Amino acid sequence: MNPVFLKKVLEFYLLEDAFFGDATTEAVSSGSIRKATIRAKEDFVLAGAVFIEPLLELIDEKFSFRLFKGEGDWVRCGEEIARIESSVKTLLYVERLCLNMIQRMSGIATKTRKLADMIRQYRAKVTDTRKTTPGFRFFEKYAVKVGGGVNHRMGLFDSVLIKDNHIHDAGGVKKAIRAAKASASFTNTIEVECADEGMVEEAIEAGADIVMLDNMDTETMRRIVQRFHGRAIFEASGRINENNIVEVAKTGVDFISIGALTHHAVWVDINMDLE
Amino acid sequence: MNPVFLKKVLEFYLLEDAFFGDATTEAVSSGSIRKATIRAKEDFVLAGAVFIEPLLELIDEKFSFRLFKGEGDWVRCGEEIARIESSVKTLLYVERLCLNMIQRMSGIATKTRKLADMIRQYRAKVTDTRKTTPGFRFFEKYAVKVGGGVNHRMGLFDSVLIKDNHIHDAGGVKKAIRAAKASASFTNTIEVECADEGMVEEAIEAGADIVMLDNMDTETMRRIVQRFHGRAIFEASGRINENNIVEVAKTGVDFISIGALTHHAVWVDINMDLE
Amino acid sequence: MNPVFLKKVLEFYLLEDAFFGDATTEAVSSGSIRKATIRAKEDFVLAGAVFIEPLLELIDEKFSFRLFKGEGDWVRCGEEIARIESSVKTLLYVERLCLNMIQRMSGIATKTRKLADMIRQYRAKVTDTRKTTPGFRFFEKYAVKVGGGVNHRMGLFDSVLIKDNHIHDAGGVKKAIRAAKASASFTNTIEVECADEGMVEEAIEAGADIVMLDNMDTETMRRIVQRFHGRAIFEASGRINENNIVEVAKTGVDFISIGALTHHAVWVDINMDLE
Amino acid sequence: MNPVFLKKVLEFYLLEDAFFGDATTEAVSSGSIRKATIRAKEDFVLAGAVFIEPLLELIDEKFSFRLFKGEGDWVRCGEEIARIESSVKTLLYVERLCLNMIQRMSGIATKTRKLADMIRQYRAKVTDTRKTTPGFRFFEKYAVKVGGGVNHRMGLFDSVLIKDNHIHDAGGVKKAIRAAKASASFTNTIEVECADEGMVEEAIEAGADIVMLDNMDTETMRRIVQRFHGRAIFEASGRINENNIVEVAKTGVDFISIGALTHHAVWVDINMDLE
Amino acid sequence: MNPVFLKKVLEFYLLEDAFFGDATTEAVSSGSIRKATIRAKEDFVLAGAVFIEPLLELIDEKFSFRLFKGEGDWVRCGEEIARIESSVKTLLYVERLCLNMIQRMSGIATKTRKLADMIRQYRAKVTDTRKTTPGFRFFEKYAVKVGGGVNHRMGLFDSVLIKDNHIHDAGGVKKAIRAAKASASFTNTIEVECADEGMVEEAIEAGADIVMLDNMDTETMRRIVQRFHGRAIFEASGRINENNIVEVAKTGVDFISIGALTHHAVWVDINMDLE
Amino acid sequence: MNPVFLKKVLEFYLLEDAFFGDATTEAVSSGSIRKATIRAKEDFVLAGAVFIEPLLELIDEKFSFRLFKGEGDWVRCGEEIARIESSVKTLLYVERLCLNMIQRMSGIATKTRKLADMIRQYRAKVTDTRKTTPGFRFFEKYAVKVGGGVNHRMGLFDSVLIKDNHIHDAGGVKKAIRAAKASASFTNTIEVECADEGMVEEAIEAGADIVMLDNMDTETMRRIVQRFHGRAIFEASGRINENNIVEVAKTGVDFISIGALTHHAVWVDINMDLE
Repeated sequence: MNPVFLKKVLEFYLLEDAFFGDATTEAVSSGSIRKATIRAKEDFVLAGAVFIEPLLELIDEKFSFRLFKGEGDWVRCGEEIARIESSVKTLLYVERLCLNMIQRMSGIATKTRKLADMIRQYRAKVTDTRKTTPGFRFFEKYAVKVGGGVNHRMGLFDSVLIKDNHIHDAGGVKKAIRAAKASASFTNTIEVECADEGMVEEAIEAGADIVMLDNMDTETMRRIVQRFHGRAIFEASGRINENNIVEVAKTGVDFISIGALTHHAVWVDINMDLE
Repeated sequence: MNPVFLKKVLEFYLLEDAFFGDATTEAVSSGSIRKATIRAKEDFVLAGAVFIEPLLELIDEKFSFRLFKGEGDWVRCGEEIARIESSVKTLLYVERLCLNMIQRMSGIATKTRKLADMIRQYRAKVTDTRKTTPGFRFFEKYAVKVGGGVNHRMGLFDSVLIKDNHIHDAGGVKKAIRAAKASASFTNTIEVECADEGMVEEAIEAGADIVMLDNMDTETMRRIVQRFHGRAIFEASGRINENNIVEVAKTGVDFISIGALTHHAVWVDINMDLE
Repeated sequence: MNPVFLKKVLEFYLLEDAFFGDATTEAVSSGSIRKATIRAKEDFVLAGAVFIEPLLELIDEKFSFRLFKGEGDWVRCGEEIARIESSVKTLLYVERLCLNMIQRMSGIATKTRKLADMIRQYRAKVTDTRKTTPGFRFFEKYAVKVGGGVNHRMGLFDSVLIKDNHIHDAGGVKKAIRAAKASASFTNTIEVECADEGMVEEAIEAGADIVMLDNMDTETMRRIVQRFHGRAIFEASGRINENNIVEVAKTGVDFISIGALTHHAVWVDINMDLE
Repeated sequence: MNPVFLKKVLEFYLLEDAFFGDATTEAVSSGSIRKATIRAKEDFVLAGAVFIEPLLELIDEKFSFRLFKGEGDWVRCGEEIARIESSVKTLLYVERLCLNMIQRMSGIATKTRKLADMIRQYRAKVTDTRKTTPGFRFFEKYAVKVGGGVNHRMGLFDSVLIKDNHIHDAGGVKKAIRAAKASASFTNTIEVECADEGMVEEAIEAGADIVMLDNMDTETMRRIVQRFHGRAIFEASGRINENNIVEVAKTGVDFISIGALTHHAVWVDINMDLE
Repeated sequence: MNPVFLKKVLEFYLLEDAFFGDATTEAVSSGSIRKATIRAKEDFVLAGAVFIEPLLELIDEKFSFRLFKGEGDWVRCGEEIARIESSVKTLLYVERLCLNMIQRMSGIATKTRKLADMIRQYRAKVTDTRKTTPGFRFFEKYAVKVGGGVNHRMGLFDSVLIKDNHIHDAGGVKKAIRAAKASASFTNTIEVECADEGMVEEAIEAGADIVMLDNMDTETMRRIVQRFHGRAIFEASGRINENNIVEVAKTGVDFISIGALTHHAVWVDINMDLE
Repeated sequence: MNPVFLKKVLEFYLLEDAFFGDATTEAVSSGSIRKATIRAKEDFVLAGAVFIEPLLELIDEKFSFRLFKGEGDWVRCGEEIARIESSVKTLLYVERLCLNMIQRMSGIATKTRKLADMIRQYRAKVTDTRKTTPGFRFFEKYAVKVGGGVNHRMGLFDSVLIKDNHIHDAGGVKKAIRAAKASASFTNTIEVECADEGMVEEAIEAGADIVMLDNMDTETMRRIVQRFHGRAIFEASGRINENNIVEVAKTGVDFISIGALTHHAVWVDINMDLE
């Protein structure tokens, strides 16, 4: 992540939690130095621990920090993730934000890993969507990657995805693709959301790089992938979950996008103890 | 919400999604005017629909907007929530952010409502924690309120909550409370996280306004509430969920805080269709 | 103060004074290292000297700094407060802002101390208001605390204060308190501004935590405090100054709020000399 | 004032007071429309009322506003200054900030007017300094102008003022002025702070545009002004107040700078009543 | 362009020019309404006129505006581009920024158009680089598009471009591409900067989407394009200008990137006259 | 430059180029340490190299940096300007922005130096205008100074420049100057743009400090300079370039302002090589 961007966003999060100050810690805490240990309280795939150090740097210059687990590691219940030694004030300023970040990101990474593992033997890879929590997207997308997924576009700005409303407005698939090729950066890929085989054919002939097979049954997807093999990248999309992901992977698609990676992930359990 | 704060945060969310622009819509869309309908795809408690209008205002001055459901209403699958009429560009700029906000907030409101309904006949009210998604806290806390919960403190800045680490650092419960009373605003309440009845006694005698009964069994909570009745506000905390919330409510506590309102809520299903 | 918040506000102040640069110092000054001494030119209670170091850090990484007096100390005319050794450029960049901060804050701390000392033998404590200079509130409130006062709420966001206009709008004291209890965080105290004994009674019965005795004569205040002893916190408010504060304190109120702590404080005299 | 700058600073002030929201008003107030009157409670020179309208615009689009007095007008106790008609929420959001701005600025304008009136028959004009409250400078300087003073430089960035430390660092008055002429914008005036007649001579010969007569007795100032008549602008500075300003004006100087315009001004008394 | 992004950047530009205010206009101008005409003083391709209106909106709500020429139109010397009717203050606040934007952008659009016209009969299109003026990139890239070019990536964030240093660091072309495919969004294209035919071969075999033919002679480019026809997109790069662009286009490449579109463009001549 | 301002602007430039991250470098680069050399590829006057170090500090704390040439030095083709040793990631993050800054600034410095050298034997100095690239003004003005020019005002905020539209609006030259003297800071110089000798006379008699001789022939300028010698500073303006600058300098004016210093400067050629 861009260090300048990271610093600005972490500052925003700290201001959200502490605004002008911490009423409790500033009243109660001495400047004493303490050791804190972040520990797993269940099994999960770790994500977000790399942000502890830049977070501490926003508050204080003097601390020591050791990380025992890597991003993407399976951490077992009871294992130590990191140790911080710093003033109590610093620890209490960052504790909650630090945990919130790791718990949310690890929840996403763990969910992603489980799905990715289910289709490890197939060509398809798990990918995410723009269905992320406002204000936390880049961290949620990062967690998908740590979990073993591949990111879809980061936002509206970095690639072209033509949906039904665009097609309706442009007057057809071909016109929409032509307009995108004329106006967008040539380094942007062009993806078209397709509802049926006819649209896929039209999109590929008009030069789409990626075709989204939206809410199709697996049989249709398989037929499309075989028919247009090598002419586009295929993304399966729409209500895919643990129950049907293997079936979808078997169709031969390249990517399977799953909104639930972010919008149905729940937090993992960790805590921070001070000695 | 403070209109200035709201505008600044919504701008941040839009920049996160669209940065300098929307590669697809700017290439493909005409300036044609369209009608969009936001509709429920399952049953849920609505939260966040009031933010659609300020979001549209960030993009465009010309649009019409009608809201058919109120914040906190149970919306049934298939019902219309809102209608927007504006240029396609405007609609496509805000669509995803708009849905992300309502889906996440309604998920929280629905989860809160279910828990609140379970203990409606008791004194206790459901409350939230600081375990929120970084960058989206004020909306998540707002959703808890819409769902029928009561907010706990918003952050570190607006009330005093003395935890074990503060007590350790201050040299005991009494010293910590005395320090808080000397330094914090007198308009701040002082809450103490207590692990057992002895701590509760000490906290109340030292002048705590609120006592958190942390991870106690219901029998202990009941005994404490009866013994100190009227001398403090009692908050039950720690791994409370659908299975045990009624038991906890029966102890007579005033508030039951549940991190899962925010960290285990999942999104509700809605969509936006353009005519 | 939250270190992230502090840095952002100090940056704003430096941009206000220097915008893109210092026309004089950049033209005239060499990089030579000098020693500067900040010294009192009259007797006062010191506040704000702790902000010199974070201010210097915004400009330069290389400086040495020693503080000879603590926040809240009475400093006598001629005494040294602090010594800085750094490049002349750095010194001249921060000199004026540094002095402006200490002079304004020490003026407030000194005024607060004098009033606090007058009522030291009574229960009442001096408190502030929201009548602060726009853009400098958190420093002015901090100076009140350094001077021996206790802070009232920091702003509109951190506790509930129901005034006549709220009561009018809500349809009475009870309705206003009920609405506040239903909507505000349960960690917020609820204060009601009362014009007479009847309102005090109504407010207390409806569950107000704090009662503001607004512009009442001391006899009325005394009677109210005695009658409702132990049922609420009492704050005396309205045109209280050196001449009547002792009389007000004798009524037994808990807090005496004085807008003049901030809006009638004037600067203390100090200077910075370079050797 | 630059409308973009004004909006950004007013937003900062509103966030300082209300952060994410107003706990009381949002709980208690209906959307009812009310009329508010801002009225003088003592006699003073009005400043700051022009900022009410842009402040209201930050909160709401729908309000009506009438201003009965102009910036710089003497307002008498009891007179109406302005009337606002808007939702109660909007009124209560801006009330305190609105009053704080007008009270502080009118205090400065009134103090300035009194001093300016004392020397109306002389050549000299009253001017301000950089001794302003951090975060509120441009409004304080504006108030000086409204009160009948003339502004000195706004900050370090918009003209050159060579002080003793610069001279020491540059190796003499002439070298400092030469360096300034070589490096600063040629549209910047160059002022030199002079401690005695010898320095004045040196500064003028080296091309200073403005000479600050710093802490000199009136006899010395008179002699300098006569000797160097027409060769520079003369600014008297240092501990000038109501008691000696006329004597200083009689020396023939062009400007008299008075830090007390800002750092010893106190607030005027006004209030806002809702009908 | 994202309306939120556009507003924020225009605000930044206005603060750069006017900071807290316009010393001249605020002193001198009445509120009188005037008509201003922006007129070409030479022939050029217009770009940037669409930003006049959002710029005016930052300063004032009341103005009328008419645009006589479209983005990308050839405007002849003497022709009217736009008319504004507003207060003089508003006009003078935006005049310089408005002209600076149009002059710089039209200079780029004109330079782009001339080069694009030279190769209109070939497959190749003119594209830009990241060699833009810091702080003004998105407008410069927009001007290239208006002039008839196609944008390359907008920055480091929206597609992958593997250069010699990346290859060196990754341990070869294949490893670099494999790493990019594993880590970057699958919607990002992958481009490789190639110095010779061997590298091109390696890059294409490893799955590069786009191949940059960097500083190659036209004979080599032609050979590569023929040999690898249909297997990648080809971008010619390196010291291409009016003298050799046609030769390069004849090689059959898809895109010709020219840094000089932005770094050697000069301003067109226009002015704004008030009636 | 104000270090706080510099940091904020450099952060803005880095976000413009890299937003949330560098897709290529983060995927491909190891953390290996490399040496980079910035080298001239043609002869030019160096400007902007002093900003490399603060730029690196935004990304990383660990790097070593050596600068071999000073701001304003003539650098010859092939000479080394600077060496950086840091992680490849850091180098690739700042490379393009670093080069863009130096190339643009050195282009301006070189153009300025050439014009300044042509009139070295005359009184006149070369000065700039407000015709700068939006978002990059302070660096472009700095480059003019490095090149041997003198800056004109930095923006609308730091001195008074009365143009025809102001005069029209104020009702004449005298009224405009009187208004400016009454309202602007007395430390601001007042300049009047004059179209003929009559206006110059009027302006000087009304107290203008600087007179702009706008688009006059050299004979007229010479006559004006002689007639009003010593009563004002004279700035020649309007379509002055290499061909006529010496003629203009011979008229005896004090400053010659040239928009082309910034709007017709092109980039110098440099590169950064990694060993």
